[in-house]
Amino acid sequence: MTARASRGRRPGAPDTRAEVLAAARASFAEKGFRGTTIRAVASAAGVDPALVHHYFGTKDDLFVAALEIPVDPREILAPVVAAGPDGAGERLLRTFLSVWDDPAIQPGLLALVRSLMADDSAGLVRDGFIPVVVGPVLASLVRDRPEVRVPLVASQMIGLIVARYVIAVPPLAQMPAEDLVARVGPVLQHYLTGDLP
Amino acid sequence: MTARASRGRRPGAPDTRAEVLAAARASFAEKGFRGTTIRAVASAAGVDPALVHHYFGTKDDLFVAALEIPVDPREILAPVVAAGPDGAGERLLRTFLSVWDDPAIQPGLLALVRSLMADDSAGLVRDGFIPVVVGPVLASLVRDRPEVRVPLVASQMIGLIVARYVIAVPPLAQMPAEDLVARVGPVLQHYLTGDLP
Repeated sequence: MTARASRGRRPGAPDTRAEVLAAARASFAEKGFRGTTIRAVASAAGVDPALVHHYFGTKDDLFVAALEIPVDPREILAPVVAAGPDGAGERLLRTFLSVWDDPAIQPGLLALVRSLMADDSAGLVRDGFIPVVVGPVLASLVRDRPEVRVPLVASQMIGLIVARYVIAVPPLAQMPAEDLVARVGPVLQHYLTGDLP
Repeated sequence: MTARASRGRRPGAPDTRAEVLAAARASFAEKGFRGTTIRAVASAAGVDPALVHHYFGTKDDLFVAALEIPVDPREILAPVVAAGPDGAGERLLRTFLSVWDDPAIQPGLLALVRSLMADDSAGLVRDGFIPVVVGPVLASLVRDRPEVRVPLVASQMIGLIVARYVIAVPPLAQMPAEDLVARVGPVLQHYLTGDLP
């Protein structure tokens, strides 16, 4: 999606929000997460930075909105975290699979993953998605060294997404969610709270 | 790479091997692993099927050659398997990382993974790479249910490739191989030989 010409449009007009989002998406894609500022996005959309904050909140929130994820992972993960570290690996995976297995949500997530796998989007996952969207939530679950544990959790989750949904490796692609929870949940728990050298 | 015109060239001429390989690559990409036959590849390259066998061996061997992997995973994994199931998770990962971390090999592997991640190549990994190239080798390591254990091993390996090499998630991207072996090796061992529901 590209930003449409917005000259002469009043701030707050119906399309302004969409134009800010398009400008944000373009900036995150071109300049990465770190290189994007609310001020530059506002300028590109021809609006005041305060309006960007008004519509989208913080830069983190704007990033999540720009990803166009059907669900906000931070909201989905909140109850997983609230229940504490015990059994978090299985709860995390169960929640994750319930979202990914939803036929109304899966196509959007798959398209997102495919676009993020593209050569020039790796930085968005590395500098944005993992540290901004999932990192802080998971970090509150680990007993120590979140900087090591969270990426290890991410590595198994990423592998599961690619194997089950992108490549559709049998029988992972067809495996009932609860079987996966029973088989992979303990590994996530190990990465979160187990003895790790 | 595309096949060059080969009309009038004698079978066995210096470029015939390259033309067979180009035909194989095109066929695997268009028709997938299952849809490709030695006979059809030979026909597309304008040579006798026996010549394809002579140059490349079986269809599995032709597939590995067509992938243009700098190393044959089946050869690399042979010593890992020969030493038996004990400690196989750590040996497997150590061998795997020694190949991936080799600066002479990594760019080729990365290009291969990126092309396999593309939408229409998933079938090649699903029907070819995993069951033909790595499946049989890993299956000889597991104590039971290879059809479940091997894909679980693959899911963690795929996640590690994507996180460490494609996305370059810190600190996984910078982590010394032996630290990764100590942290992820036990998980691979668990998938290979541990108690799995």
